[in-house]
Amino acid sequence: MKLARKDILGLQDVSSEEITLILDTADSLKEISSRSIKKVPTLRGKTVINLFYEPSTRTRTSFEIAAKRLSADAINISPTTSSIAKGETLIDTARTLESMSPDIIIIRHSASGAPHILARLLSQSIINAGDGFHEHPTQALLDMLTIREKKGTIEGLTVAIVGDIAHSRVARSNIYGLITMGASVRVCGPALMMPRDIGRMGVDVHYDMEEALRGVDVIMMLRIQFERHHNSRYPSTREYARGYCLNEAKITGAKKDVMVMHPGPINRGIEISPEVADGPYSVILDQVANGVAVRMALLYLLLPGEQL
Amino acid sequence: MKLARKDILGLQDVSSEEITLILDTADSLKEISSRSIKKVPTLRGKTVINLFYEPSTRTRTSFEIAAKRLSADAINISPTTSSIAKGETLIDTARTLESMSPDIIIIRHSASGAPHILARLLSQSIINAGDGFHEHPTQALLDMLTIREKKGTIEGLTVAIVGDIAHSRVARSNIYGLITMGASVRVCGPALMMPRDIGRMGVDVHYDMEEALRGVDVIMMLRIQFERHHNSRYPSTREYARGYCLNEAKITGAKKDVMVMHPGPINRGIEISPEVADGPYSVILDQVANGVAVRMALLYLLLPGEQL
Amino acid sequence: MKLARKDILGLQDVSSEEITLILDTADSLKEISSRSIKKVPTLRGKTVINLFYEPSTRTRTSFEIAAKRLSADAINISPTTSSIAKGETLIDTARTLESMSPDIIIIRHSASGAPHILARLLSQSIINAGDGFHEHPTQALLDMLTIREKKGTIEGLTVAIVGDIAHSRVARSNIYGLITMGASVRVCGPALMMPRDIGRMGVDVHYDMEEALRGVDVIMMLRIQFERHHNSRYPSTREYARGYCLNEAKITGAKKDVMVMHPGPINRGIEISPEVADGPYSVILDQVANGVAVRMALLYLLLPGEQL
Repeated sequence: MKLARKDILGLQDVSSEEITLILDTADSLKEISSRSIKKVPTLRGKTVINLFYEPSTRTRTSFEIAAKRLSADAINISPTTSSIAKGETLIDTARTLESMSPDIIIIRHSASGAPHILARLLSQSIINAGDGFHEHPTQALLDMLTIREKKGTIEGLTVAIVGDIAHSRVARSNIYGLITMGASVRVCGPALMMPRDIGRMGVDVHYDMEEALRGVDVIMMLRIQFERHHNSRYPSTREYARGYCLNEAKITGAKKDVMVMHPGPINRGIEISPEVADGPYSVILDQVANGVAVRMALLYLLLPGEQL
Repeated sequence: MKLARKDILGLQDVSSEEITLILDTADSLKEISSRSIKKVPTLRGKTVINLFYEPSTRTRTSFEIAAKRLSADAINISPTTSSIAKGETLIDTARTLESMSPDIIIIRHSASGAPHILARLLSQSIINAGDGFHEHPTQALLDMLTIREKKGTIEGLTVAIVGDIAHSRVARSNIYGLITMGASVRVCGPALMMPRDIGRMGVDVHYDMEEALRGVDVIMMLRIQFERHHNSRYPSTREYARGYCLNEAKITGAKKDVMVMHPGPINRGIEISPEVADGPYSVILDQVANGVAVRMALLYLLLPGEQL
Repeated sequence: MKLARKDILGLQDVSSEEITLILDTADSLKEISSRSIKKVPTLRGKTVINLFYEPSTRTRTSFEIAAKRLSADAINISPTTSSIAKGETLIDTARTLESMSPDIIIIRHSASGAPHILARLLSQSIINAGDGFHEHPTQALLDMLTIREKKGTIEGLTVAIVGDIAHSRVARSNIYGLITMGASVRVCGPALMMPRDIGRMGVDVHYDMEEALRGVDVIMMLRIQFERHHNSRYPSTREYARGYCLNEAKITGAKKDVMVMHPGPINRGIEISPEVADGPYSVILDQVANGVAVRMALLYLLLPGEQL
């Protein structure tokens, strides 16, 4: 069974059946990465383009490994160091790449909506690997795979997402996906870091972290992107950490078997304390491993190819 | 049948028989990119090095995809970010790479003649992917493949090349190739953008665009490389566009079935208007698709390997 | 037979039996690079990560080619242009990569000891591709392979290493390896360029180059890393070259069949004269070719996989 859609641009309009299909497929593909020969011929002869307008080690490497373990050919393009300098528009770049007959284009871009432009223009499948402050659906899918793996189900869980909600594409995709899958979602952060439309997103809004974490099953910490803030009204690093750094004291109000997540890279001591990041509640590295599996699943489900 | 030469450094000394062989081979390889499994084992176990001293998305990606669709291993090297910083000479870099036993080295370099130095020194095949203001033979070959595809033949056609002829390696390679194949070539641009030796190149020189386009079969627009000009005598962007931007009005003097080409990336509104770039005469995206096919053909024709 | 160790971090603690196994394996793998189809399926389905925190054409390309000729999947990561910008620690990067299930991580880092941190933390094999001023074991192994190839044996030879010994990881790894294999090692350079612990390394220390080269079998020149010195007490380039540039006059005191080595990239006219670099004694390009073979050998010997 394959996905009945061309692209994965975000989770806002993805159904629970589709998410379940993706997670189930990821589950069954995950085992490949633990084999001695970590490779299946499923996508042999397919061309996967990683078009990353923002730097990324983690996500780009995860997609590249996913493509290669399915035997696809992966091509990396980082236009910051190439024709961007020549002023080519995103649309012209996209049409140029389309003419080289790739099967799928994975795009990360600082502009919200960039992947949607590609998806409308091109016949190829597009996967959004993060667009501006909008969505990062593969991150949310790997987060949900990790939650389901540890908790058995997503339905009925309470998940607290803590940090700069307004500027987090990870938060936005998780809110959509988790609610679709039947979880209750709380968001928590300083008032300035709440999106204006948060009231319409179906979440509980908290400004106090202790309160937000009370009784939750899952704590999802967000990375603070200090490089993005030049607003003097924002809290300083020290102020932020005092209110919202997840440490062992703050965890005590959550459920005993709470799991702690972070999309990485971690700012140790700012949004999460080292003891918690490396401690028994943390599933941060499981998230990374599940990232490869989820991306393999999406490549498989979006492309025609041999059955598994 | 293979090419009876080691390298493709330019089209100045390539015969019409050789060009025909390359275009015929590209024609037959083109179909691979439209298959579901876009890959043949022809160059399995061959090592192709992309040595790009100038940034490039389009050409580097095109060569990398071409190599992978023939099952060769492709290695990308962008020396701007590596040992160039250490002051290694081109010759030492070339000899170093040679010692790693690649089968072919594709080089782009800002210095005219750089690929020729490699070709003389190394036993491996060298393909010039653009050298300074000199030649860019694979671009001209893909242009000729596109013309032949649309017009059935190149012989007897009239082609107008418009832009900064003096600083265009695309123009130079096309002039050589098109004349060899029996086309009439007109060049057109501001006087300051004409090469000094244009009188010896066998082309008609025009400074007025309307006149240059009258009755032509093919219009080939060049990219204006503003980043290369620091000469105050050059026209401003606005002045340039007024005289030489290809818009629908200017096309009317050409043949009814004229085709419009551009090597990309496009400066919309400067050398070509958006309506023309995206309009019915434009074959710009066909050029890109043919780029993969021509590069597959050259890799195949220069290297020993399985027959197709 | 495989190596009974997980990592190659340096040659300080590698036995002569292990070095001999590596060199013998490299010898037998070298032939693959001269085949028409330069590829064996030995490491199919293995994932090799090249994690280069310092720019490198030569070493990174050599490892990438080695991996591909053994059919492994190679992933290049240059964190300078990616999440380093986000402040992720080496340890977090390493754990993240580990979670993607690579089989081997090759690391170059400006901090001495960085590969050792990875080796302790991760279950995967780590190869040190150069760490700070500490070790560069694969360079020393390819140097020893080259010496053995030309001289039949390493035991009993006298090798002079000339240059900035204190800041050379190449020197340090060669000193350990050559002494283990039974060679006598002389080091030579300005007093300021001698490491403080040189007295404990089992080498003869010379400050005069003529004296150092007298009767030697092998001269190993080091690259002067001018970019690393900001100390006004260091000799100027001209002073350095006067005392320590290897030219034909200085060679005359060595054995008639002396061999001249250099790890590259060469500063022609500074540490080595062009006539010597390109002359009959030079084995510089053999070193490069042996680099691919030695790295294939290490990948093969560290990883489980098909027998050759």
